Amino acid sequence: MNMPDLIRRKRDGETLRPPEIEWMIREYTGGAIPDYQMAAFLMAVYFRGLNREETAALTRAMVASGEEMDWSAIPGVKVDKHSTGGVADTTTLVLAPLVAAAGVPVVKMSGRGLGHTGGTIDKLEAIPGFRVHLSREEMVRQVKEIGLAITAQTGNLVPADGKLYALRDVTATVESIPLIASSVMSKKIAAGADAIVLDVKVGSGAFMPDLASARELARTMVDLGREMGRRTVAVITNMDEPLGMMVGNALEVKEALAVLRGGGPKELREVCLTLGARMLLLAGAAGSEGEARRRLEDLLDGGEALAKFRQFIAAQGGNPEVADRPELLPATREQITITSPAGGYISSVRARLIGEAAMLLGAGRAIKESVIDPAVGIELKKRYGDYVNASEPLAVFHVNDRTNLETARKKFLAAYTLAPEPPSPRPLVYEVID
Amino acid sequence: MNMPDLIRRKRDGETLRPPEIEWMIREYTGGAIPDYQMAAFLMAVYFRGLNREETAALTRAMVASGEEMDWSAIPGVKVDKHSTGGVADTTTLVLAPLVAAAGVPVVKMSGRGLGHTGGTIDKLEAIPGFRVHLSREEMVRQVKEIGLAITAQTGNLVPADGKLYALRDVTATVESIPLIASSVMSKKIAAGADAIVLDVKVGSGAFMPDLASARELARTMVDLGREMGRRTVAVITNMDEPLGMMVGNALEVKEALAVLRGGGPKELREVCLTLGARMLLLAGAAGSEGEARRRLEDLLDGGEALAKFRQFIAAQGGNPEVADRPELLPATREQITITSPAGGYISSVRARLIGEAAMLLGAGRAIKESVIDPAVGIELKKRYGDYVNASEPLAVFHVNDRTNLETARKKFLAAYTLAPEPPSPRPLVYEVID
Repeated sequence: MNMPDLIRRKRDGETLRPPEIEWMIREYTGGAIPDYQMAAFLMAVYFRGLNREETAALTRAMVASGEEMDWSAIPGVKVDKHSTGGVADTTTLVLAPLVAAAGVPVVKMSGRGLGHTGGTIDKLEAIPGFRVHLSREEMVRQVKEIGLAITAQTGNLVPADGKLYALRDVTATVESIPLIASSVMSKKIAAGADAIVLDVKVGSGAFMPDLASARELARTMVDLGREMGRRTVAVITNMDEPLGMMVGNALEVKEALAVLRGGGPKELREVCLTLGARMLLLAGAAGSEGEARRRLEDLLDGGEALAKFRQFIAAQGGNPEVADRPELLPATREQITITSPAGGYISSVRARLIGEAAMLLGAGRAIKESVIDPAVGIELKKRYGDYVNASEPLAVFHVNDRTNLETARKKFLAAYTLAPEPPSPRPLVYEVID
Repeated sequence: MNMPDLIRRKRDGETLRPPEIEWMIREYTGGAIPDYQMAAFLMAVYFRGLNREETAALTRAMVASGEEMDWSAIPGVKVDKHSTGGVADTTTLVLAPLVAAAGVPVVKMSGRGLGHTGGTIDKLEAIPGFRVHLSREEMVRQVKEIGLAITAQTGNLVPADGKLYALRDVTATVESIPLIASSVMSKKIAAGADAIVLDVKVGSGAFMPDLASARELARTMVDLGREMGRRTVAVITNMDEPLGMMVGNALEVKEALAVLRGGGPKELREVCLTLGARMLLLAGAAGSEGEARRRLEDLLDGGEALAKFRQFIAAQGGNPEVADRPELLPATREQITITSPAGGYISSVRARLIGEAAMLLGAGRAIKESVIDPAVGIELKKRYGDYVNASEPLAVFHVNDRTNLETARKKFLAAYTLAPEPPSPRPLVYEVID
């Protein structure tokens, strides 16, 4: 086998055999195939795609490049959830304790945020004292005790993906459905879940701009999961506007607490119930979607989900009082109200720009090495379809450092389009792919 | 400007502006843009192409990456000839003295062979004592004296092309018309000719497999030459079978001498007359193609072209007696006759396989660092359309080292297809693009 030949055949639209793809990923991870050949291959894949068998071979080869977690010591069906990345999307912080409270074990490896999207590990670190690095043994013990543990992803989980993703990021080869699908699914499979619920975001704030491509990505990932022997389902949800009302790490913990207390924005609660119901169904913990939803609503409204979160914080070294007194979370010196320069119905909210504005204020990372401020962020006051008067507040910026304030404000305001008539309502959950 | 953005825009089918392409080539040649980003860009170009303005900007930027020759000290219109690469194609060795004998100055920088195609510098080095490295001053003096000089291309002529070509070779991005065109034309323009005749080969032994793509390449190169202020014309010629009957360095010198003496294979003579006539027309040394051809025929048949070659060899330190006694050229210890395993009309000759067989015997280079044997090669006995009996000789292999003999013989025989009926004749010269 030689790499120029594999590149040429993919370039010419041929199908590669699984042993060829396995060889390529092994040699690339080991350093024998240079980045420049892989970059040419990735661009050929961007144009020619990979069929189902090739995508499965790629995913399998990526899983095999590193450690594969084994949680069989924990009884029950372990369900994982993955979002393709959104803005003000704090569903993991709600779902982990909620599903655990329903008796389904949650053992999760999460990542940090990059660019306009947040990361669960960054949010948990906003809780004073919270430890995000647990050993395998600590994870198993904690899940057996309280049904729930979350740790930061280690370097030896799918090293091929780390190397490939870094290369794709600088060679304009990120936006390829088989490459996105194999990247996501290799990590989920190596992380060792028995069942996986995928939240595929579609809209202006997501990687997938339209429903057709979101559907294709969802279908590809569900097929991949099944071929690897994992129960897998995907839910396509709207990311045309931020899901919740808070963008920023401590602010999103606050918002998750509100949902866990039975309140919070109804859109965030609805997506959590939809995804959570699917998690219960996959785990065999409910007989129907309706039954699952009712169970979860009761757990939110009855305080059991919040109690589980309190227990979870304490187990990982954080201050459990935060659950009842969110004011203990880090806060900024300044809160600056951002008003609308004009009046009208909000007819479009470009979520990506809002994520980028929060990043500019210090809530997110422009590059991997950026230092973030957990207290910083944006609190939204209006949603898609709302009427806003000229000079009425659109948001409150939580700020410690004014350096990029003006740029952030401009970017934030550029996210909004106002219209004289109310826009037509859009679905929050498009469809379920199973 | 940033490279991921330029890659993305080309990937998405956008047109890049000339300053963007100039920046990219400058930064790549200087080492600031890594190979992996350029590899992704080249693959995007493979799929999306470059328009006329982009191709011109690329060519200009490549020329600007190194030294540009200036032959204005030599009076007259300096005409260069370039072939896109063939097998048994010794036209340069015939045309250089022939055109010089017609009074048109020839100042030429040539390359070495790689893969299945030969190189003029390697062929000249088969002549005992011949010097292929001349300084600029030596070139000017010699052309003023005898009208003709050929030197090996130096490293500082279009360094961007050297770097890009090495990358394209290992990333399956060679076969792109704008990339081939800019590579060829940047070298011709930097080499300083006033006028350029391009021999674009089409067929099984050429880069361009079909007439449509050969025509597109020819058109692209002619347009590029004109935009750079050089009189340029392209002739599309057949490379379905080797042009002459000799493959190998000393053997091709022998064949060139035969043509210069008024003999040689009629196909090789015909292509030399066609290209030579165009060279005379571009230089303003003839009023019509017919007049130019007759001049050249007289120079071949009257001995003036051979006399010029003798003078040329002497001027560059070679033994001029070779011109009259080809037996002074290096010869092999063994000559092995290769017979046809079956009888029939030769209906297809895959020139590339014959070039590769000669390379295996030691006449050419598998990699840049390979050492070649000037005496080694293949002397063909039959052409397309000829009838061959079973056990009748197809060729004579000139061999010093039998290591790859069997592999070479198999590859050679695989080049031929025999049929019970004579094949339809094919044109030798398809068309002229001007």
